This record gives sequence, structure tokens and C-alpha cells, in this order.
Amino acid sequence: MKPERGPVRVALLGCGVVGSEVVRLLNGQAADLAARVGAPLELAGIAVRRPDRVRPGVDPALVTTDAQALVTRDDVDLVVEVIGGIEPARSLLLEAMKTGKSVITANKALLAEDGVTLFAAAREYGADLYYEASVAGAIPLLRPLRESLVGDHVHRVLGIVNGTTNYILDQMDTHGAGFNDALEEAQALGYAEADPTADVEGFDAAAKAAILAQLAFHTPVTAADVHREGITEVTAADVAGAKEMDSVVKLLAICERVPAEDGRNGGRGVSVRVYPAMIPRSHPLASVREAYNAVFVEAESAGPLMFYGAGAGGAPTASAILGDLVAVARNLVGGSRGPVEVTYAELPVLPMGETITRYYVQLDVADRSGVLAAVAEEFARQEVSIQAVRQEGLGEDAQLVVVTHRAPDAALSATVERLRKLDIVREVASVMRVEGEETP
Amino acid sequence: MKPERGPVRVALLGCGVVGSEVVRLLNGQAADLAARVGAPLELAGIAVRRPDRVRPGVDPALVTTDAQALVTRDDVDLVVEVIGGIEPARSLLLEAMKTGKSVITANKALLAEDGVTLFAAAREYGADLYYEASVAGAIPLLRPLRESLVGDHVHRVLGIVNGTTNYILDQMDTHGAGFNDALEEAQALGYAEADPTADVEGFDAAAKAAILAQLAFHTPVTAADVHREGITEVTAADVAGAKEMDSVVKLLAICERVPAEDGRNGGRGVSVRVYPAMIPRSHPLASVREAYNAVFVEAESAGPLMFYGAGAGGAPTASAILGDLVAVARNLVGGSRGPVEVTYAELPVLPMGETITRYYVQLDVADRSGVLAAVAEEFARQEVSIQAVRQEGLGEDAQLVVVTHRAPDAALSATVERLRKLDIVREVASVMRVEGEETP
Repeated sequence: MKPERGPVRVALLGCGVVGSEVVRLLNGQAADLAARVGAPLELAGIAVRRPDRVRPGVDPALVTTDAQALVTRDDVDLVVEVIGGIEPARSLLLEAMKTGKSVITANKALLAEDGVTLFAAAREYGADLYYEASVAGAIPLLRPLRESLVGDHVHRVLGIVNGTTNYILDQMDTHGAGFNDALEEAQALGYAEADPTADVEGFDAAAKAAILAQLAFHTPVTAADVHREGITEVTAADVAGAKEMDSVVKLLAICERVPAEDGRNGGRGVSVRVYPAMIPRSHPLASVREAYNAVFVEAESAGPLMFYGAGAGGAPTASAILGDLVAVARNLVGGSRGPVEVTYAELPVLPMGETITRYYVQLDVADRSGVLAAVAEEFARQEVSIQAVRQEGLGEDAQLVVVTHRAPDAALSATVERLRKLDIVREVASVMRVEGEETP
Repeated sequence: MKPERGPVRVALLGCGVVGSEVVRLLNGQAADLAARVGAPLELAGIAVRRPDRVRPGVDPALVTTDAQALVTRDDVDLVVEVIGGIEPARSLLLEAMKTGKSVITANKALLAEDGVTLFAAAREYGADLYYEASVAGAIPLLRPLRESLVGDHVHRVLGIVNGTTNYILDQMDTHGAGFNDALEEAQALGYAEADPTADVEGFDAAAKAAILAQLAFHTPVTAADVHREGITEVTAADVAGAKEMDSVVKLLAICERVPAEDGRNGGRGVSVRVYPAMIPRSHPLASVREAYNAVFVEAESAGPLMFYGAGAGGAPTASAILGDLVAVARNLVGGSRGPVEVTYAELPVLPMGETITRYYVQLDVADRSGVLAAVAEEFARQEVSIQAVRQEGLGEDAQLVVVTHRAPDAALSATVERLRKLDIVREVASVMRVEGEETP
């Protein structure tokens, strides 16, 4: 445990739930961390907005409001950013790398919006840029994709990457609750924020999908490229319909390589999307309950893989940050560098309309002869093939449930639009995509 | 995709199922691999025992029987070893590192027997030593433990790390088959070898447990330190008994930090063991079917994590090797190095008798008054507390099922030995450890 060099000095930007946990671990595990790094880790300063707030376990002498000065200090080796948001986080990280510091960030919004700028700076200034904590909390996911699977050919990443929405959908599935009741309960228990927009509208999951797709396919993807639908319109009827199909509704982040017709290796492009969808209860993701996260990866040689764990929270996120901190500090002590992102593939991100999906459609229909034929005709008109139809109820309660085969999303949604206009269709009661089948 | 340097030249030792798949991927994915590494990967030579064997896709000009000459050639940058076994693999890897080459190995037996020598050589000669493929095939597991969780405090690793035995136990659970029938079926389907000893006696799992424990606890552990029991004595009655407990029998590799009574951070030592045990069906590992592998990790900050996938086979193992190959080649191109193993903790490996476990015991007993009291007395004598007792059947068929609370394994096994000698106990029909509960 003899350090072979002076301490590695760490600047921390932000000291909220995650930041204060990072401080606690740096202090509490100091001897272990020093042995693993080969040198002690030492806090050089902590930049906060409200310096007067009481922070148990934090040395007030380290606290500053001048983040800009902190990241450019000569006695700082590494910068950990847990402020979140685009600015000032981006400027501070760029400034840090420009002055020769490696950086660790948990900032998914920034990485998904402008990762390209950060990666370019890391390359230009020879800095390490690690960001395991930005997706799925403590679950080691980015390092496996970035390194373990780097010799493989990833076909698909299918994940539950937002704990709040998984909690809400799980409550709806377990107790038959409606969306609003489940949201209120999630808020009461601290799983959802007072303004839940980022979670329930899928913005958080979309940022993570962009980061995952970029790593999996070595191609630039931003949050704006991600087709995004939240869960606010998921109804108790949708969840009940899924149950009847022996399925469950999950908010999925889906990153898929779309095969080229000529069979060329990279594929025609990638599809990156976030939406609620039905998956069979037999799928490993179906049993992910409460606020847990899990990501299913399908690669050519590796086959199916799944990673499961706590996707958020102060301690799990801090665990991921500490892992990155030790890795970057080891690199510093050993005079080496971690992997640099490569986005050589430059595959196009395909529009949602070209994405191949399956639909579950539940219709309230008039109970008279010819209904099924008329409905089937609309699917056929868009060249959508039907896998199964089930008619339920009689008279006023007559319902038709249609599950399609795989078809372009544009054809499926056009079919649903036309069905809405049919006289014999009183209401399109539920439309839900169906996922979790074999690799396309 | 412009290479910035000459090709990275790779020597391959062994060209069986895994080796030939490595060759296929190196050739088939050449452009992608070059882009990810920053330089092309080129096969410099392939050492085999039988040079005349036909190997489709393998350039005969690369084949040699002189592995020793190959690993010391100046035009070789990296050595990939997929021979298996202790010698000549160890000598070849040491020779390679001595002459400045980084190495990648899938050799769990060697790592578990003499990892210390390999790690010391890697440190001494500044070589990278990567071995993701040695445990759980394509599942990224060692890199997460080695890097992602390196800032955390791992309490426990609980894994299904042998596909053959999981297939056999899954068949016994699903179809009520006996061990021998299930083994024969596994052999017919290619899941088990003609000589299944390494798998069914737990040697394979014990080697993997040693590797996992060493990484998780930063402490030296060899295969000889691992308490090992195989599955050959698991009976249909054991599996049926587990079912009645809403549990399932799995061959588990368990690496556990044993807390110190004074609460000190590292703990009193580590327990590393492989044996068949009951786990509740609600445990994530219980649903791992067929020949799949999964490893459950519990860490202080990260909480519970699970990694799931194909644990063996040519393609998955080759995927793990290619991931390591790209990482090591990137290091070479970038002039850096991967993490070096640290075993600073030097925690003792505790004997099995001191390990805290729970037992399930099923007894055929005489159906007369006082039986329960006599049995309970034996548990009490060893200070083993009973969690539940169930009496079943009458007369000749009278059975007693006892589930204990947690106790030292020595006390539990001593109790069972004494029960075997009681007049009123006709037979100890089943003894099985119970695992999969909360962190100790």
C-alpha cells in the first residue's frame, strides 16, 4: 500500500445527492482506493452553487463557488462532473480537458446532445473521458459495450433504462392502477420527481438510448435523432390488453441495426427509439420489477446478454463514478490512457416510418357482419400482414384485437389512421407496439 | 479508417473450436476491427499440434507446430492462447511476456492454479494480460469486476458459471429426471463431454470461482483454496424436495466476504466454494435455464447486479477474446496499458467449516412419539437453530424435513453426522445447502 507517487487530486463539480456520496466514499474507502490505484485519491476542491448549505462529512475549506477556477487549477489531476444539464457543465469539462485533465461525468443530457464535442476534445487534448454513470446507474454497461463487445457485431440493444417509468408501469401491471394513480404513488415514494416530465415523456430514456446506440454501432447519434414516445398515454386498458397477450408493457429504449438488403456488414442504418411496448412475459426484461433497470444486448458472436441492477440513486451512481475514477487515476499513475470513442461507421439513423415493428391494435367495433373483412382490408391496403385476430364481446361491447406481423412503422400507423375513420370502428381503444422477439 | 501505424500482428496458440472461430472473426470483421483499433489486426502465425488437419478458412502458410518459436518472434505483437491446461500454456505465455508481448488467454485452469505467476510476469515485463474469456464465455464479467466495480466494496459473488451442470440440473428440475439420465441427454446433445468429470465434479466451476474471488476481493485465491462439491450425488429426491420449498437446485460458485466481528472494512476473510444448493425460485438466478450462465454480484454502493448470457461455446468465447484483442491492440497503438491485478488485500480464505450456511435436511424416520424431540436435540447440541420443521407421511413413510437458520458449516455437518447414527432415523434422504438470501 505504499504510494509510488503523490496523490491523484480530484476536483468535484456539484455536491448534491450523488456528489456527496462520492465524497463519502472517497473518504471512507481511502485506503482501499489508494491500494487499487497505486496512489491516494485526494479531494482538491468541490464546486457548488450554494456554499452555505450544511454538508455533513464535507470539509468546508474545500468548497468553492468558482468552478471555472477549480477546473483550471494546476494542482488538479481529474475532474468529476455531477452538475447535470448542458451549461455550465460542457464549458467546464472542455476547459478541464484543455488544461490537460481527464474527466468523469454522469451527464447523460450533455453526452446525448453534444457528446461529439466532448469526444473530440478528449482526443485532441489526450484526456480520458469516462461516463459509465450516465446510463443505468451502477450497472456496468458502457464499459462492456465500449470494451468487452468491441470485437463483436452488435445487432440490438433493448433496455429498461428509466426506473421511474418502470416503477409506474409495474404498479399498473401489478395492481391495475391507472397512469395518474401510479404516478402519484411513485412521487409519494420518491421514485418520481414533482415535475416528472423528463421521465414520463421519455426524455431521460432517449438520452440514454442515444449514448447506447453510439457505443453499440460506432456511429454518431444524438438525443434529437431518437424517436421518443412517453408513457403518459398508456392506459389501464393497454396494460390489461397486454396481460391477455401474456405480455407486459415496458418503456423500452431500442437501438437496432437495420440489415441491408445487399447483406453488407454494417447494415442499412440504425434505428434508435424509445416508446412503451408489449413484450412477452417470457422475455428476460419482462421480469424487471419496480425501479430496477436492465439492458438486453444481442451480438453476433456473444449471443444474448443481459445486464441488471439499480439504475439510479446516489449510492449506485457514485459506485459507477468511483469505478471510473479508479480507472482514470490508474491510467494517470501508469502513464496510459483509456479507450477513445470511434464513430467511424457513420451509419444513418433511419426515420421511425422505416423502422420495422409490430402492432397490437384493439378496436371497439359495431357488431355486424363484414366488420372483420373491412378491418382486414385496411391492413391489406398497406401491405401489413395480420398474425392473429380475436373477436370479443357482443353488441355494444364488441371488440376486435389485431396483432400484426412485422411491417414498416409508417404502414402500421397509416393503417391505424384509416381504421379511426371507419364507420364500423367506434374507437381505437389501444395501439401498442410489440417487441422482444428474435433479432431482425 | 486509415491505419496510423503498421498492422498489429497476432500469434494464435491453438486452433480448435474457439481458435478457429477467432480466425474466422479476424478475417471476416477485419475492416471493423481495424477501425476500432486504429490499425489492422493481422495473423502472424497459428501454433497447432496436428498441422495436417484440414482447417477451413485457415491459411496453411500460417500454421506451425513450433509454438515456442512463434511466441518469441520479433514480428509478433500479441499472443492469444486457447490451448488450455497448465503446460505448455504457462511457459508459452511467460515466454511471450518476457519478450515484450501482451497476452490474451481463455485458460481458466492455469489462471486458477498459477495466476500469481502470470500477473507477476505481466507487471515485471509491462505486458497486458487479459482473460475475459476464462469465466462465463461472452458475458462481460471480469472487466466489470476488474474496472467498473473497482471503486466499490464487493460483498458477494454468486454465480452459475458452468453450463453443462446447469443444463443437467435444469433437466432434472423440469422433467424429474435422475442425474444419470440427464447427464446422458446432455452428452447426446453435446452439452457434456464424454468424460464429464471436470464439469460434474465442479472442477471447472471451482477454477472460475477462484478467478472471480481474486478479482472481487483483491486477494490471492487459487483453485486449491476452493471448497468443491459436484452434482453427481444430487438425486431426483433432492430436486423434488427443493420444489416443495419453492426452490430450485443450482450448482453455485460462491465468493463471499465474511464480516469481521470488529466491523473492520476488509472483513475476517473470504469464503470461496462451489456446491449444489437450493435457491428460492424468486431469486434471479433461479430462472437461468439450460446451459446459460449468470452471475449475481452484491456490492456496497452498487447494490445487486446480475450478468447473464451464454457461458461457453466457440462463438461466445471468441467474442470475449476479440474484445480483449481489440483492447490490448488499442493499448499497443496508443502506447498505454490496461489495469494490472492488485491483490493487496491478502485476506485469508476461510475453511469450509467456518463458512456460515443454511441446511435443508430430509430424514426418513420411525413414526413414533419423541422423534421430533430427539432430532431437535441434535441440532440444539451443535447450537444450530431450526427455522422450520415439517412432518410428512405416516408409519414406514414418515419423513421429517428440517430447514435451519444460518450456522457454521462445521456445526451443520456435525449435526447431520449425528443424525445418521440415531436409531429413529432410518435414512438421511437429502442434505442440501440453502443459498440466495440477503447479504450476510
